[in-house]
Amino acid sequence: MPFEFAPGKPVAKPFNKFKEETLVEATTQIATQVTELSYALDTFYFLVMGALVMWMAAGFTMLEAGLVRAKNTAEILTKNVGLYSIACIMYMLCGYTIMYPGDFGGGIFESLSTIGTGLLSSSDNSAADVIASGGETYYSNLSDFFFQVVFVATAMSIVSGAVAERMKLWSFFAFSIVLTGFIYPVQGFWKWGGGFLETAGFLDFAGSGVVHLCGGAAALAGVLVLGARKGKYGKNGQVNAIPGSNLPMAALGTLVLWLGWFGFNGGSQLKVSDVSEANSVAMIFVNTNMAAAGGLIAALLLARFWFGKADLTMALNGALAGLVAITAEPLTPEPLTATLIGAIGGLLVVLSIVGLDKLKIDDPVGAISVHGVVGIWGVLAVCITNPDAIFLVQLQGIASIFAWVFLTSLLVWIVLKKTIGIRVSKQEEYEGVDTHECGLEAYPEFTPAR
Amino acid sequence: MPFEFAPGKPVAKPFNKFKEETLVEATTQIATQVTELSYALDTFYFLVMGALVMWMAAGFTMLEAGLVRAKNTAEILTKNVGLYSIACIMYMLCGYTIMYPGDFGGGIFESLSTIGTGLLSSSDNSAADVIASGGETYYSNLSDFFFQVVFVATAMSIVSGAVAERMKLWSFFAFSIVLTGFIYPVQGFWKWGGGFLETAGFLDFAGSGVVHLCGGAAALAGVLVLGARKGKYGKNGQVNAIPGSNLPMAALGTLVLWLGWFGFNGGSQLKVSDVSEANSVAMIFVNTNMAAAGGLIAALLLARFWFGKADLTMALNGALAGLVAITAEPLTPEPLTATLIGAIGGLLVVLSIVGLDKLKIDDPVGAISVHGVVGIWGVLAVCITNPDAIFLVQLQGIASIFAWVFLTSLLVWIVLKKTIGIRVSKQEEYEGVDTHECGLEAYPEFTPAR
Amino acid sequence: MPFEFAPGKPVAKPFNKFKEETLVEATTQIATQVTELSYALDTFYFLVMGALVMWMAAGFTMLEAGLVRAKNTAEILTKNVGLYSIACIMYMLCGYTIMYPGDFGGGIFESLSTIGTGLLSSSDNSAADVIASGGETYYSNLSDFFFQVVFVATAMSIVSGAVAERMKLWSFFAFSIVLTGFIYPVQGFWKWGGGFLETAGFLDFAGSGVVHLCGGAAALAGVLVLGARKGKYGKNGQVNAIPGSNLPMAALGTLVLWLGWFGFNGGSQLKVSDVSEANSVAMIFVNTNMAAAGGLIAALLLARFWFGKADLTMALNGALAGLVAITAEPLTPEPLTATLIGAIGGLLVVLSIVGLDKLKIDDPVGAISVHGVVGIWGVLAVCITNPDAIFLVQLQGIASIFAWVFLTSLLVWIVLKKTIGIRVSKQEEYEGVDTHECGLEAYPEFTPAR
Repeated sequence: MPFEFAPGKPVAKPFNKFKEETLVEATTQIATQVTELSYALDTFYFLVMGALVMWMAAGFTMLEAGLVRAKNTAEILTKNVGLYSIACIMYMLCGYTIMYPGDFGGGIFESLSTIGTGLLSSSDNSAADVIASGGETYYSNLSDFFFQVVFVATAMSIVSGAVAERMKLWSFFAFSIVLTGFIYPVQGFWKWGGGFLETAGFLDFAGSGVVHLCGGAAALAGVLVLGARKGKYGKNGQVNAIPGSNLPMAALGTLVLWLGWFGFNGGSQLKVSDVSEANSVAMIFVNTNMAAAGGLIAALLLARFWFGKADLTMALNGALAGLVAITAEPLTPEPLTATLIGAIGGLLVVLSIVGLDKLKIDDPVGAISVHGVVGIWGVLAVCITNPDAIFLVQLQGIASIFAWVFLTSLLVWIVLKKTIGIRVSKQEEYEGVDTHECGLEAYPEFTPAR
Repeated sequence: MPFEFAPGKPVAKPFNKFKEETLVEATTQIATQVTELSYALDTFYFLVMGALVMWMAAGFTMLEAGLVRAKNTAEILTKNVGLYSIACIMYMLCGYTIMYPGDFGGGIFESLSTIGTGLLSSSDNSAADVIASGGETYYSNLSDFFFQVVFVATAMSIVSGAVAERMKLWSFFAFSIVLTGFIYPVQGFWKWGGGFLETAGFLDFAGSGVVHLCGGAAALAGVLVLGARKGKYGKNGQVNAIPGSNLPMAALGTLVLWLGWFGFNGGSQLKVSDVSEANSVAMIFVNTNMAAAGGLIAALLLARFWFGKADLTMALNGALAGLVAITAEPLTPEPLTATLIGAIGGLLVVLSIVGLDKLKIDDPVGAISVHGVVGIWGVLAVCITNPDAIFLVQLQGIASIFAWVFLTSLLVWIVLKKTIGIRVSKQEEYEGVDTHECGLEAYPEFTPAR
Repeated sequence: MPFEFAPGKPVAKPFNKFKEETLVEATTQIATQVTELSYALDTFYFLVMGALVMWMAAGFTMLEAGLVRAKNTAEILTKNVGLYSIACIMYMLCGYTIMYPGDFGGGIFESLSTIGTGLLSSSDNSAADVIASGGETYYSNLSDFFFQVVFVATAMSIVSGAVAERMKLWSFFAFSIVLTGFIYPVQGFWKWGGGFLETAGFLDFAGSGVVHLCGGAAALAGVLVLGARKGKYGKNGQVNAIPGSNLPMAALGTLVLWLGWFGFNGGSQLKVSDVSEANSVAMIFVNTNMAAAGGLIAALLLARFWFGKADLTMALNGALAGLVAITAEPLTPEPLTATLIGAIGGLLVVLSIVGLDKLKIDDPVGAISVHGVVGIWGVLAVCITNPDAIFLVQLQGIASIFAWVFLTSLLVWIVLKKTIGIRVSKQEEYEGVDTHECGLEAYPEFTPAR
C-alpha cells in the first residue's frame, strides 16, 4: 500500500485542515515507504543477479559437454545437473549454517548444532526490523541464501570438468556432497562469514580465491588421485590431443558463463540502491566484460603465434580466465586496467594448460588452469588497484584456501578410491561412460558404431 | 523529473523563506514520486520476470529438439517457434479479453464483443490514476499482458512434445489457434480472471493446474486421437525405447526452463515493492530452485535403483516435475518442504512415464507425465502447507480444468482428424517429417543417408 | 544509509521535540534518498537491459554456427567471440569518445584528442551532482557505456554471418577493428551523439538504421568484394542450396536474439523510474514481442505458399526481420500495428533473400536481408505511427548511414584485399576453414572423413 498522499485535488484535501501532527505523520509514513522500497530494490537486484549465477550452471554444463568426447557426454551432463542439485540441497541442510554461523547466534561450533534446521527455522526480516535497523538490514535473508547457494554450485562445477571421461558417477556425487556441504563452507566462512581471513584483511570481492581457487584445488586433488585418461600421454612423453566433440556447445557454454558472471561479480556488491552503489555495480559490469574480452584476445593471439592457429578452445578458456582474474577485484580498476588484468589471465591460462600437460596432469577442459592458476592471479591482482590490499595477506589467503581445500579433497578422494573406487574400468573408459553409467548415449544417431 | 529538493547548500534555499504551505507541497510531491517509483519497480520486475518466462519457449524448444529423432528435429523446432508466435497473436486478438473480462468492463460475454479490439483500445494507467488508486493500481497493464502472453505460450509448448514425430504441422498449428485463443483463456478466467474457481477458493499460485495440467490434458487428448509412433510398442507388449537424438540440447532445454521458472513463479507474486512482498519473491525463488533440485535427485535415484542406470532423461524430467509440483504453491512451504514436494514430483514422473507406456500412450518427451500428472500433484500439494487450501476445492479445480481442456481439445483434435487430418503418412513418418513438412533437415551432414 | 525516520515508537521520538527546522531537514533527506533510489533503479534497469543485449552475442554466434556447414563452424564461432571482444576493446579505446563527444567537452574533433583516455579519465556521477541536476542526470555513465558497447558488438555480429565460409579470419578481425572503432561511432554520433541527423529530426529509436542497416551495409560491401562461395551459383544461373549444418543451434540463436531484443529496444527508452516511463518500457516489450511473432508467421506462410514447405530457416529469419522492423519505433504503435509492421518485415526478408540470390549476392545466413533491407523498412515504418516522423528525413537518414558505412567499408575491404587478402584459398574453402584457420574441427566425431 503506497502512501495516501497524492498531488492535485484529492491530495490537497487533508491539508485543508493541516496541522503539525499530520505532516509529521505523513513524513514518517513516506520515510517508511522509501526504506521499504529501497529494501525491495536491493532484494530484487540480488535475486536477478542470483538467477544469472544459476544460469552459469548451464554454462558449465554446455562447456564441459562440448569439450569431452561424444561417448562421455551424457554422463558429464548428468554430473553437472546432479551436482547442482546436490549443492543446493547440501548447502541448505548445513553449508549455509557453517559458512555464516553469526547469522545463527554463535561461532562455527555453535552453528553446527543447528545443522539441518538453521535456515529452515529462521524467518525473514519484518518491515519493522528493517526500519529499526537504520540501513543495516537492506535485503531479504532468503535472497542472500539464493545468491550464496548458486555460488557453491559454481565451485563444484569446476571439478566435474577436470575429472571428466574417466571418473565414476556416484563417487563424483559422493565427493560433491562433502565439498558443498563442508569443505567449501568452511573456507567460505574464513572470508565471507567473518573468519580469520576476513580479520586479516584478505580481499576477494567475488571469489577468485573462495570460489574459483577452491574449485581448482579440489579438481587438482581429484585428477592426481584419478590419473590421466587412457591414451592422453604417450610412452615417449608426447601429449595426444583429445578434441572436444561439440565446439558450438563449448562456445555457448562460455558465453553463458560470460553473461552469468555479470551476476556473479555484479551481485557481490550486495547493494544497488543509492548513487554510489549503483555506480559501483555499473563499474563491475563494465570491468567484468572488459576483462573477459581482454582474456579472449590475449589467449587467441598467443595461440596464433605459438601454435600457428587461432585455437578456439584456447580463446574460450582465455575469456573464462579473464573473468576469473577480475573476480577478486572488479570494482577498483579502470576499464583499461581490467582489460589488462584479464589479458594476463588469458596468457596464463594458455601457459598453464600446456604446462599441466607437460606434468601429465590431465584436465580435459582446462578447469584447473582457468580457475586454479588464474584464480591465484586474480587474488594477487587485487594489489594492483586496491590500496587496501596487503600482498602477504593475499598470499596467506591463497595458501590457506589451497591447503585446506586440496588436502581435505585429497583425503576424500583417497577414501573414495579405497572404498567404492573412483575410476571406471578400462573397458568402460574405452567404450564410453555414457552407456555404462547412464544407459544411454548423448548422440545415438550421429556417432559411428564402435 | 525527480523532486526538486536536495540536501546541502542549493537545497536549503527555498526553506529560507519556509512556510507551512511549501512543506505541504513538498511532502505531497515526494509522496507522488515515491508512488511512481514503486509502480516503476513493480512494472520493471514484472517485465523481467516475463522475459524469463519467454525464455522458457527456448527451453521447451531445446528440450523437445533434443528428445526426438534427428529426422523429426527441424519440424519440432518449427512447431515450437510457430506455436509461440501463434500464442502471442491469438492471446492479443481475443485470449486476454476472454480471460480478464473484468478489465474490459463486464462479464465474459460482454468482453467477447471487444474481441480483437479489447487490448488495443485500452490505454495504460496514467500517473494520476495510479496515485488516486491508493495502491490498487501498481503496475503497467501492458506489463501484465506481456507476462500473461508468455504463460499461454508455455501451456501450448507442453502439447508439441507429446504429439511429436507423427503429427502434421499445420493441423498442430490449427489446434494451437484454438487452445491459445479460447480453451486456455476460458479456464484461465475461472481462476485468475475471477471466475467460479476463484470464488470457490481454489488455490493455484502460478498454475500447476491452470497452465501445466491444462497443457497436459490437451496433450493427452491429442495423443489418444493420434496414436503411438510406429514401432514404439511391439506386438507382444514390449515397449521399444526411441532415444532422443541430442541430449546436450535436452539438458540445455531443462536448464533454460529451470531459469525461466524463476520468472514463472517469482513473477506470479505480481509485486515486489515492499519488505513483505520482496521477502515473498525471495522465498519463491528459493523454493522453486529447491523443488527442482529435489525432483532431479529423486528421479535420478529411482531410475538408478529401478533400471540400474543413472538415466539422464529421467533426471531432467525429474527436475521439471519438481518445478511443476511447486508451482501451485511456491510461497508457503519452507525450503526443505519444497525440496520434498519436488522430490515426490520427481518420483511420480518416473512412475508415470513407465505407466503411460504400459497403457501404450506414447509421449516422446514425457510431457503428459511432467505437466499433467505432476500438475495434479502440485495442486494437491498446496494443502500440505497452505492453511487456506480446501482439499475438495482443489479436487474440484483439477476436475474442472481437466474436464474442460480434455473434452474441448478432444473435440478439436477429432474435428481436425476428420477434416484436414492430423497424422502424417506412414512413409513420411518413416522417412522423417522434416523433409516432408519443412523441406530441410536439422542435421544434413551428420545423419546417415536413409 | 536510508533515512533515519521510522514509524512506531522509536520513530516518534525526535518529533516529541518537534520543530519546523527538523521537518524541513527530514523532508530534504527523504527527497535526496528518493532521487538516489530513482537513479539506482534506472541504472539497474540499464544494466539488466545491457546484459540482455550482450546475450545477443550468443544469439548471433549460435545462429551463424547453425547456418554454416560443419567444416566452417569452429571458425565462425571464433569470429563471433573474437569480434565481440574486439568491439568492446575498440569502443572503450576510441569509439565511445567519437560517438559522444559532448560528454567529453567538445565537438567530434576535440574529442578525438581524448582517444584512449576519454572514458578512462571520466569518473561517474556523484550523488551531489545527481541531485543538483534536477533530474537531468539519472543513471550511471558506466551503465550507459555498458549498454552502448554491447550495441556496437551487435552491429559487427551482423557482418560475420554474411561473409561466412570463405573469408580469412584475421582480415575479418582487421575489419572489425575499423568498424567498431571508427565507422560505426561516426554515424552513431550523427544520430545519438547529437549530430546532423539528430538535428534534422531523424527518428530511429533503438537503431533499425544506426545498428542494423549499418551492419547490413558493411556486410554487403564485404560480400561484393569477397564474392560468392564456390558452388553456390551454377553456370546456368541456378542457385544451389547450401543447407545449414545444425538447425537446433540456429533456432536457439534466434530465440536468444528474441530475448536479447527486449533489452535492445526496452533499454533504449533509457529510463523506467516513473509511471509514464514504466508504461513505455512495457509497451516496447509487448511490441517487440508481437513484431517478432508477426514476422515469423508471415515468413512461414509465405514460404509455405511459395515453396510448398514450412521452411524453418525462413521462419527464423522472419522473426528476426520482425524484430529489426520494430526497432526504429517500438513505442508508438499499438500491439496489432506492431504485429503487422513485423509481418511486413517477415515478407520482405523472404523476398530479399530470394532476390539477393538472383543477383548472386551470397549471404549464407541472410544477414543483409534481415538487417539491411528490413532495417530500411524499419526506419520508414516509423512514419506510420509516429506523427513526428518526416518521411524525407527518414530517407535522408537511410541514405546517409548507408552511403557512409557502405563506402568506408568498401574501402577497407578493398585495402585488406590488396594487402593481406580477404579470401581463403580454394583448397581451404573446399576442405573447410576450420582446420586451416583454427587447427581444429567443430564436430570432429560427427562429420564424415573428407
